[in-house]
Amino acid sequence: MMQIDTERVLATLRRLARFGARGEGVCRPALSEDDMAARRWLADQMREAGLDARIDAVGNVYGRTPGARRALLVGSHSDSVPTGGWLDGALGVVFGIEAARVWRSQWPDAPIGIDVVSFSDEEGRYLSCLGSRAFCGELDAGQWDALAYEGRTLRQAAADAGLPSPQDLARLDPQRHLAYLEAHIEQGPRLDRAGLDIGVVTGIAGMHRYIATFSGRADHAGTTPMDMRHDAGMAAFEFAVECEARFRQVGAADSVWNFGAVAFKPGVANVVPKVAELTVELRDLSEDVMARMGAALAALAAERDGVRQVGVRLARQGALSPASMDARLCQALDQAAAARQGSRMAMPSGAIHDAMLLARHVPTGMMFVPSIDGRSHTPVENTADRHLALGAQVFFDGLREVARMFQATLPPGVAAT
Amino acid sequence: MMQIDTERVLATLRRLARFGARGEGVCRPALSEDDMAARRWLADQMREAGLDARIDAVGNVYGRTPGARRALLVGSHSDSVPTGGWLDGALGVVFGIEAARVWRSQWPDAPIGIDVVSFSDEEGRYLSCLGSRAFCGELDAGQWDALAYEGRTLRQAAADAGLPSPQDLARLDPQRHLAYLEAHIEQGPRLDRAGLDIGVVTGIAGMHRYIATFSGRADHAGTTPMDMRHDAGMAAFEFAVECEARFRQVGAADSVWNFGAVAFKPGVANVVPKVAELTVELRDLSEDVMARMGAALAALAAERDGVRQVGVRLARQGALSPASMDARLCQALDQAAAARQGSRMAMPSGAIHDAMLLARHVPTGMMFVPSIDGRSHTPVENTADRHLALGAQVFFDGLREVARMFQATLPPGVAAT
Repeated sequence: MMQIDTERVLATLRRLARFGARGEGVCRPALSEDDMAARRWLADQMREAGLDARIDAVGNVYGRTPGARRALLVGSHSDSVPTGGWLDGALGVVFGIEAARVWRSQWPDAPIGIDVVSFSDEEGRYLSCLGSRAFCGELDAGQWDALAYEGRTLRQAAADAGLPSPQDLARLDPQRHLAYLEAHIEQGPRLDRAGLDIGVVTGIAGMHRYIATFSGRADHAGTTPMDMRHDAGMAAFEFAVECEARFRQVGAADSVWNFGAVAFKPGVANVVPKVAELTVELRDLSEDVMARMGAALAALAAERDGVRQVGVRLARQGALSPASMDARLCQALDQAAAARQGSRMAMPSGAIHDAMLLARHVPTGMMFVPSIDGRSHTPVENTADRHLALGAQVFFDGLREVARMFQATLPPGVAAT
Repeated sequence: MMQIDTERVLATLRRLARFGARGEGVCRPALSEDDMAARRWLADQMREAGLDARIDAVGNVYGRTPGARRALLVGSHSDSVPTGGWLDGALGVVFGIEAARVWRSQWPDAPIGIDVVSFSDEEGRYLSCLGSRAFCGELDAGQWDALAYEGRTLRQAAADAGLPSPQDLARLDPQRHLAYLEAHIEQGPRLDRAGLDIGVVTGIAGMHRYIATFSGRADHAGTTPMDMRHDAGMAAFEFAVECEARFRQVGAADSVWNFGAVAFKPGVANVVPKVAELTVELRDLSEDVMARMGAALAALAAERDGVRQVGVRLARQGALSPASMDARLCQALDQAAAARQGSRMAMPSGAIHDAMLLARHVPTGMMFVPSIDGRSHTPVENTADRHLALGAQVFFDGLREVARMFQATLPPGVAAT
């Protein structure tokens, strides 16, 4: 089996973590100076690995294998949340660069090359998965002026960052890109708790978001007897408690939900809450399961409308369809892990990734390494060195397995790797 | 029975409502220009009624019956919340001025006079019940510089309003002031719903305020399985629902409570709430009942500490002792209502009033007129004209009853009214 240089992987990750370093964590929001400096450095790393690298109009760093007519596209994103950790998407970008480097040095004439990408703004300073959306042709021309952060449009921010004109976008090429593979930290506790090395992602959960609004009356909390109140706050509390019980009944084993935000008006100690707004988010790999949970939510809202003399209204705020990973790619990653004695599990991704966008267009696979204590998007985010090393090797081995698989389908006369 | 001029009462209330008028409501926060203009006008009204009137260092308008060695102190407050209604405390001040006017004209040599007061800042721009606290000697010298609104200290605001120096405070005189009586709108729905004319206040509920803090962990709401969460939000919701059930068990018939504010950190849709802060306020006429409810709250917090892997901490934020009204004054007001064929009920005051301060020092009585639909502290606050007229008459009759009662205890040789 071909060995990659896992020490180099760790060193590259640590050098990348210096861009925007904040203690143990990093601050590299999209198009910030530190983000752009990191991207220029990554482009240089890709060039050193033998790729033709450039930075496109939204900040995507894209490194192509010269000479190859077909390629596996690999990578992730190198931007971070403002108080982020050092790994997150950076891990997948560095795993990709290492894979491309070894690939180029070992098989310089391989018919299937490795193209590496670091997508821009996965974290959504301007738009969640901005870079991969643009790469997939899903960024509308109008969004350059419509998307903004702190009063600066995407168009202006990109120009200020020295990026080329909006026409100059790197694009997915279905003739060239046989598949997309992404490595990422899990960002959750499952692998860590189970003591496993590798997560083979079966799909990325979809997400439905709702706002439940409870409308009561703002009465004096001293003078209004309990039975005369229209208490929107208590109505919201009871709703959430009952809603959770129903989600447990109708959801699947991996379904998750969250009541992450609640706001009272007027929200003061001595006034009965007039309005309560409750944010409800639910996720699952299956649209059917999400539809079942949504129906339970709507039914509960209808049942509770008028209870406690409080009106209930439910509004859908947003939805993302789940994405399935390609079964052959899952199998290749699983076999690669097995061959390296890596313990592993198949698991859904509850978080959104660039792979969610790519999966709509090309066969896509994803691999997780454990997050210590499940932490991410915080400076304490970390993964054991041995998991970083094993992950990089398994990812490389998986790519080789996938390339072999596709090679069998290529026209005759193409040289084997 | 002596008739007061109820038309004059209504006219005086309407003229007072022009100060700081905002549509149907008024805006007269303490020491604002409109509040001070209203106070100067009220001082003039008191003088016309035959009183020696002045405005003291905190803005209290105090009108003394000249010649009398003893007096019933009557009144309320004429400041309002920023978007207040036209009645609130203004009603009690105007009822008091009318009573004093008739009293002076009918019994100029009565040994028990009527002193009228419009307390400053009952609504608490600088301090809740500021004027009555100062009047009762409960304002510390240090508070002149410690209390502030929008960066301006009470000392500065009083000077800017043209008030005399801080030494020049009108003061409760236990030798002179035999009792304090206050009329006010109910500010709640009980009289209006019951179709009654007059509320005889038996006491003013005390209030205990707590903050319950739930401490969990901020995890990604997509990647963290439900059974691995430390969800401070759901812990708070369940706590409030169960807490209400226990308050119903241990509270008295008139006990009230409110979960008026809740705050999540970080409070975003896709992060499991790390911290939830829940404000709990409870009120009752009895310290014992409040203590029982407080114990139930503390027991629940102890039981729930650690449930859902969330810590619970309970902190007392403030407390006001309940105040009992004087039973003889209650009886006098009740008899006065009965004599005018007024339907009535004995009831607690859930709201705080200047009477709460006075009751610590002199026998105190309070009377409510109905608030239409229970509304107050809003421009739609209103009371039917017939209730205003009946209330003013009953209040006057009650004062006469109270004066007779005290007269029986005065030294011999004092002339009867």
